[in-house]
Amino acid sequence: MKTIVLLFLLAASIATSHGIEHGIDYNIYPLRMKSGSGGHYINGITCSSWRLGVEAHNIIEWKTIPQECEGYVGNYVLGVEYRQDSKAVNREAYFYARSLDLIKDGKNIWVFDVDETTLSNLPYYANHGFGVEPYNSTAFNEWVGLGIAPALPESQKLYHKLLSLGIKIVFLTGRLESQRDITVKNLKDAGYSTWEKLIVKDATKYKGKTAVTYKSSERKKLEEEGYRIIGNIGDQWSDILGTNTGNRTFKLPDPLYYIA
Amino acid sequence: MKTIVLLFLLAASIATSHGIEHGIDYNIYPLRMKSGSGGHYINGITCSSWRLGVEAHNIIEWKTIPQECEGYVGNYVLGVEYRQDSKAVNREAYFYARSLDLIKDGKNIWVFDVDETTLSNLPYYANHGFGVEPYNSTAFNEWVGLGIAPALPESQKLYHKLLSLGIKIVFLTGRLESQRDITVKNLKDAGYSTWEKLIVKDATKYKGKTAVTYKSSERKKLEEEGYRIIGNIGDQWSDILGTNTGNRTFKLPDPLYYIA
Repeated sequence: MKTIVLLFLLAASIATSHGIEHGIDYNIYPLRMKSGSGGHYINGITCSSWRLGVEAHNIIEWKTIPQECEGYVGNYVLGVEYRQDSKAVNREAYFYARSLDLIKDGKNIWVFDVDETTLSNLPYYANHGFGVEPYNSTAFNEWVGLGIAPALPESQKLYHKLLSLGIKIVFLTGRLESQRDITVKNLKDAGYSTWEKLIVKDATKYKGKTAVTYKSSERKKLEEEGYRIIGNIGDQWSDILGTNTGNRTFKLPDPLYYIA
Repeated sequence: MKTIVLLFLLAASIATSHGIEHGIDYNIYPLRMKSGSGGHYINGITCSSWRLGVEAHNIIEWKTIPQECEGYVGNYVLGVEYRQDSKAVNREAYFYARSLDLIKDGKNIWVFDVDETTLSNLPYYANHGFGVEPYNSTAFNEWVGLGIAPALPESQKLYHKLLSLGIKIVFLTGRLESQRDITVKNLKDAGYSTWEKLIVKDATKYKGKTAVTYKSSERKKLEEEGYRIIGNIGDQWSDILGTNTGNRTFKLPDPLYYIA
């Protein structure tokens, strides 16, 4: 009984603190708290093993998260673990960046993806089953159009530290040219005040192409323009695979969706 | 109080079942059970976030595990999570393999690494701080020389399933030519009865070379001999990065050590 009360209090505290932090108007209580190895079995494996499989790029090309893992994934992304896992990656990225002896010619850049890397769409996913619902471009683009996605706090810390090291920031996103203005507004409102470039996708040019192809091609252009990609960070493996990936890559956690 | 008794019973049951399974003569009780997000903070992040960072190849080139994570890593590898995480990867590998429409010419191979992929050195690491102690080649090679490393059960299931699909097995290991005979004996004793090739490292040829270079070079030779590398599985990123990596790669969990 004591344990149940404790878990309830824990859930309440997470819901409150993170609800505010991510600007989420969402009731966490219906989600069951999972302890230890992470809950429900899906066809013989646990949701936590599924998530690790996703993060290490073993489980690929999935369309939605397993139905049984909605509660697990919801608790993960709204709870302390997601924040801590993000911190571990961003912290390592900073340790790497500060160890470099950089030529100070203004040509050193760090590539950031936008969604789930720079800005968080948790308020959207919290209302759409945390990845259980198939991707709905109309609904998602409506959300993007609001321009109210909050910053991912640990990524934002990295962003500021890189700027202070004299590294320029390039945002490279799968968002479309038509979403450029609202993305600029959203980034600025969320606290990203400056950048070298914001590269959005030319829907005609990259029609039918994968994110790996699009992003590799745009990174190649950056290098042809004389930039050195010191680092590259994203929540999808497609952000950091392919060509011209940069001197070192970092994979942020994202158990919500998969982009090839 | 109830919770503590429950944790104790859980620890006891894990110690018993996994102690037998991995042939480990080791008392798990001194290790504290960690629940939830995985315990101790190391310089601002948790051991579970450190482990995820390792698995997703964000935290690289480390010499030993963080001192503070000995208990966490020990519990992880001796407990159910390591087994489940391994299962999730091997299961995905099998789903992939069975989905293929293979040419039946005897040229399809699957590359397995040996240590922490095919055979488990947990009995050794349990007596050496679970990766806290710096690598000691003398002590480790003495252990290898005993030839008693148990099979990793989930990898062994994959091995048998691949054989039944008509895929041949190639073991590609950083173990040396001088360790070939004991490795053959150990593999057979552990239940790996057949394979196409067991490639061990030529210490002279690859002196001073990384595992990525050695393994890429040996995989290239395999392809030149007409083999098709259908899949490639290992516990280190150096098993699956580089060139000639195979059609698809799988990264098994290993929080104990890092090989470049």
